[in-house]
Amino acid sequence: MLEEAIERITGQHSRVTGAGRTDAGVHAAGQVASFHTDSALPAERLREALNAVLPSDIAILAVEEAPQDFHAQFGATSKRYEYTISTRPARPVFGRERCWHCTWPLDIAQMRRAAELLVGTHDFAGFASSGSERKTTVRTVTRCELREETDRVILVIEGDGFLYNMVRTIAGTLVDVARGKLPLERVAEVLASGDRERAGRTAPPGGLCLVRVDYGEKQRS
Amino acid sequence: MLEEAIERITGQHSRVTGAGRTDAGVHAAGQVASFHTDSALPAERLREALNAVLPSDIAILAVEEAPQDFHAQFGATSKRYEYTISTRPARPVFGRERCWHCTWPLDIAQMRRAAELLVGTHDFAGFASSGSERKTTVRTVTRCELREETDRVILVIEGDGFLYNMVRTIAGTLVDVARGKLPLERVAEVLASGDRERAGRTAPPGGLCLVRVDYGEKQRS
Repeated sequence: MLEEAIERITGQHSRVTGAGRTDAGVHAAGQVASFHTDSALPAERLREALNAVLPSDIAILAVEEAPQDFHAQFGATSKRYEYTISTRPARPVFGRERCWHCTWPLDIAQMRRAAELLVGTHDFAGFASSGSERKTTVRTVTRCELREETDRVILVIEGDGFLYNMVRTIAGTLVDVARGKLPLERVAEVLASGDRERAGRTAPPGGLCLVRVDYGEKQRS
Repeated sequence: MLEEAIERITGQHSRVTGAGRTDAGVHAAGQVASFHTDSALPAERLREALNAVLPSDIAILAVEEAPQDFHAQFGATSKRYEYTISTRPARPVFGRERCWHCTWPLDIAQMRRAAELLVGTHDFAGFASSGSERKTTVRTVTRCELREETDRVILVIEGDGFLYNMVRTIAGTLVDVARGKLPLERVAEVLASGDRERAGRTAPPGGLCLVRVDYGEKQRS
């Protein structure tokens, strides 16, 4: 979609690399993508032109020039995802495709304890779906906390990288702990064993949103 | 839609009366509707059954028994609408169908002054579209203020009743004042003259949401 829009504007085919994959149904509010172009269009003009040709469910917030070696995916040093759980008694209507509606009573304090256990450098194999190649399943989660809003609980998770379905599996497991279906100890057990079968369900895609991508000094001037 | 759902569940055709009209594209988060039924279904069971057959863009938040003479429209003593203006530099993506994206620089302080002028009992003929019969165009606005959020300005307006397109015309006029297209004095002038041509544009329907309906003592036990 974005590649076609760029080609339409610059007349040149460019390969676009996104910072984080967003599967079908997953949202992004702060995705970063990089591409090379020979176009002389100033960045702001390019932004306007892209927004004019892209469909209304995509918006380019900013376009900026980057060093030649900038790579949106490999250069990312930190990513933040949010997973939104609606706890509204009635089913959500507005934004219903951007949350997981959980009607079970949730013990948020217990859920918070479970979330804290995930912070740090761990082997997250037990919280990932197989399906993508990776050298290692060790990742560092720098932040894993819950934000409570009216009728919503939002899992905010930040780390140096995430395995396939990792945030959704963490969200599903935390909900299972919060509703008393899994004991709190299970979290440490899954980390230690790497056994996906022992973790909770994979939460549905709609609740997930990539909200921010950060780049280290070396990548952004 | 709701009448069909009620008929499907109770086996009886009931006429449904809504508290406030919501034109195409307008939303409601707190609509109230009344109907008569001989069904013996408890209110909570009826709520669940209705939600099960209604499409996902409608949710019944509560069902409660009312006195025989309760009428959702005529019994309403106060209604609150919100009109959402997105001031985000980039076009909004999430919830884009529920706001008016205004890219002009807006003088919010001036807009607030204009909003205050509308509070009180006035003839609002100049802020209404003709098209519906009404005995009088005098209405009492008890609250007309702006709530500022990140990248959004929300007009909160409450009153005993609203004329056809009145909130949208007020929103459009306030934006015209905020962007310097209309002078502040114009608001009082339109109130005094009743001349719709002197007011601002009718703001698009998507930004409008009926959020609350109140009933006086006489209507709710």
